[in-house]
Amino acid sequence: MDRVAIIGASMTAFGDRDAWLLALLAEAGDAALTDAGVDGDDVDHLYVSNMASGEFEGQTGVPNALAHDLAAMPAYTARIDQTSSSGGAGIYAAWQSVASGASDLTLLVGGEKMTHRTTGEATDVIASLTHPVEYKHGVTLPSFAGLTARKYLAQYDAPRESLGKVAVKNHRNGLDNPHAQFRKEVDLETVLDSPMVADPLRLYDFCPITDGSAALVLCPESVAAEYTDDYVVISGVAGATDTHVVHERDDPTTMRGVVESAEQAYEMAGRGPDDIDVAELHDMFTILEFLQSEDLGFFEKGAGWKAVRDGVTDRDGDLPINTSGGLKSKGHPLGASGVAQAYELYQQLLGTAGDRQVDAEVGLACNVGGFGNCVTTTILEQP
Amino acid sequence: MDRVAIIGASMTAFGDRDAWLLALLAEAGDAALTDAGVDGDDVDHLYVSNMASGEFEGQTGVPNALAHDLAAMPAYTARIDQTSSSGGAGIYAAWQSVASGASDLTLLVGGEKMTHRTTGEATDVIASLTHPVEYKHGVTLPSFAGLTARKYLAQYDAPRESLGKVAVKNHRNGLDNPHAQFRKEVDLETVLDSPMVADPLRLYDFCPITDGSAALVLCPESVAAEYTDDYVVISGVAGATDTHVVHERDDPTTMRGVVESAEQAYEMAGRGPDDIDVAELHDMFTILEFLQSEDLGFFEKGAGWKAVRDGVTDRDGDLPINTSGGLKSKGHPLGASGVAQAYELYQQLLGTAGDRQVDAEVGLACNVGGFGNCVTTTILEQP
Repeated sequence: MDRVAIIGASMTAFGDRDAWLLALLAEAGDAALTDAGVDGDDVDHLYVSNMASGEFEGQTGVPNALAHDLAAMPAYTARIDQTSSSGGAGIYAAWQSVASGASDLTLLVGGEKMTHRTTGEATDVIASLTHPVEYKHGVTLPSFAGLTARKYLAQYDAPRESLGKVAVKNHRNGLDNPHAQFRKEVDLETVLDSPMVADPLRLYDFCPITDGSAALVLCPESVAAEYTDDYVVISGVAGATDTHVVHERDDPTTMRGVVESAEQAYEMAGRGPDDIDVAELHDMFTILEFLQSEDLGFFEKGAGWKAVRDGVTDRDGDLPINTSGGLKSKGHPLGASGVAQAYELYQQLLGTAGDRQVDAEVGLACNVGGFGNCVTTTILEQP
Repeated sequence: MDRVAIIGASMTAFGDRDAWLLALLAEAGDAALTDAGVDGDDVDHLYVSNMASGEFEGQTGVPNALAHDLAAMPAYTARIDQTSSSGGAGIYAAWQSVASGASDLTLLVGGEKMTHRTTGEATDVIASLTHPVEYKHGVTLPSFAGLTARKYLAQYDAPRESLGKVAVKNHRNGLDNPHAQFRKEVDLETVLDSPMVADPLRLYDFCPITDGSAALVLCPESVAAEYTDDYVVISGVAGATDTHVVHERDDPTTMRGVVESAEQAYEMAGRGPDDIDVAELHDMFTILEFLQSEDLGFFEKGAGWKAVRDGVTDRDGDLPINTSGGLKSKGHPLGASGVAQAYELYQQLLGTAGDRQVDAEVGLACNVGGFGNCVTTTILEQP
């Protein structure tokens, strides 16, 4: 079967943006179309990955408005929501639109506008994805992260400092990402001394609240070269769910959605963990980077923290992880994050990642919704 | 290419339901799986078409919760939103999931829970899909419908009574639909004497606010017979957009999204308007049934009202329209409506529509978001 290619990609600056969602989407969408060398009227399908434009800014029907603003009418549009992994779900939807023959050219734009709301309001919207019983007892996502981190540290004899090293590494990478929300190095002491949020996790173990957008242009690989010499292919993409009720899981240190979606994506790509040269993982909380790096098969269970400690996941290590700065430093505009992961891999595979450049032919992105409730895994490769 | 089959379908009772969205979705999803003779763990992909669970009941992440409640984990899930045409967009997404080879068995469940909110709150959420400038000037969807109806009546020399006849016909059909919200006949006088909403449209020209859910089970046609003898195929499906800003349209009595999506769906199916035996149209307002019946090519422009007047679209007419009762009588739970349209066609094509049964081999559903902002058209056929 003809594979699906990414012939254009972009992201906006992430951070505290003085613009509504539609403007952010238009900025990224326009830049991705320009990168691909196509116009709005070349677009057959336009997908917007976004969790909560209605809740955050009282505006729905945004995909239709975006089709208008990008002069893409009468392109088909829809919004894809998978909470914090909406971006990965958007990639899967965009892939399906091309792979099914429904669209010859698809634009995916992910985005979220959040910083105009208070932290309490924003976290209330995010918390609405959890199970009401857990939520009403106060067990929100940060609480799950704290409980899971505590269990992980005990189970695998890992020191508290190991978590902090994820933050230090990802901030170091983000320093070289012109689009990152936080472009500053942090040392381990700063992380370990930051305010406690959910023991053992402290403020610097968490990603920020962010505005931003990212976009991809997809078409069949068979015609990609007609548009550009600089493209990558989606060799694998899949998604899976885990329990909505987190306390029903046998062991929260294993993310079943990651394991399942990765198995399917590896099989589709004819690849395994050893083939991956660079990865973007969903480090909404530092502990999640350990869990994903293990559940994706990069490292043995319980060995993820040692890989970070030993520099294996540094930019000059064997398997660089979160060269973009990750959600931790780059920021996490929910619907954009999965798309921005793919944008980073696109740059790494095309050799346009500037100071962040690593040597990579195959990249993997893992986008996590909720506390692993729904997960998508995407594998990108040089053609 | 292998076509996509619908091997199971269902809908819940529509109306004022004492249940949250998740329970309604589980009710329809479970019934559709039973109809197809499969279990939750047979499901590869699970799509939920829903506009606004976050706004209406403060709950997001519903697809994940549904995967849990239907024992469908680790099935991939996502929410598809296209405002009031989310159901049609869900059909397109589910079709793509099977046609692309990503899923061997897909469950689509559409639903909305609205009646627990006041009419003002519900219409505020719906109005958020319109352009802010129009909305803030008070030009909401009912206003557009009134303005367009007035123009249509003048342009095509149609009497006010012609609109009322849509309501009379669809209520008569809904009387025989056990799932309909309103099972009562209304006479023309009642419609014409009902309270004015947006001149010339009166209360009985509008669909109600509704709770409900509907579901479909899809698989490749090549394996459909392994599940059941009673299935239909999706021979055509497509979607298109029109301007988000309604006053930018050359002529609001032509819905460009209907024209474009129908052209593509007809081409895909190798069918034309003359091949359609039964149709479910999006009669959110009575005037919309005229516009769609013309823009789909069933009748000449300006002749839709005469077809209703002459009984052509009655159950015993040449082209029965809205045998289910339509949104007008059956109700309009936003994310469910497009899926429920397909459920009606599924029954008509399988000969299980009971007192509503008409003679049909090919059916068409047209699902409209906003005031024609985004539209999907689906053609279903006997195998």
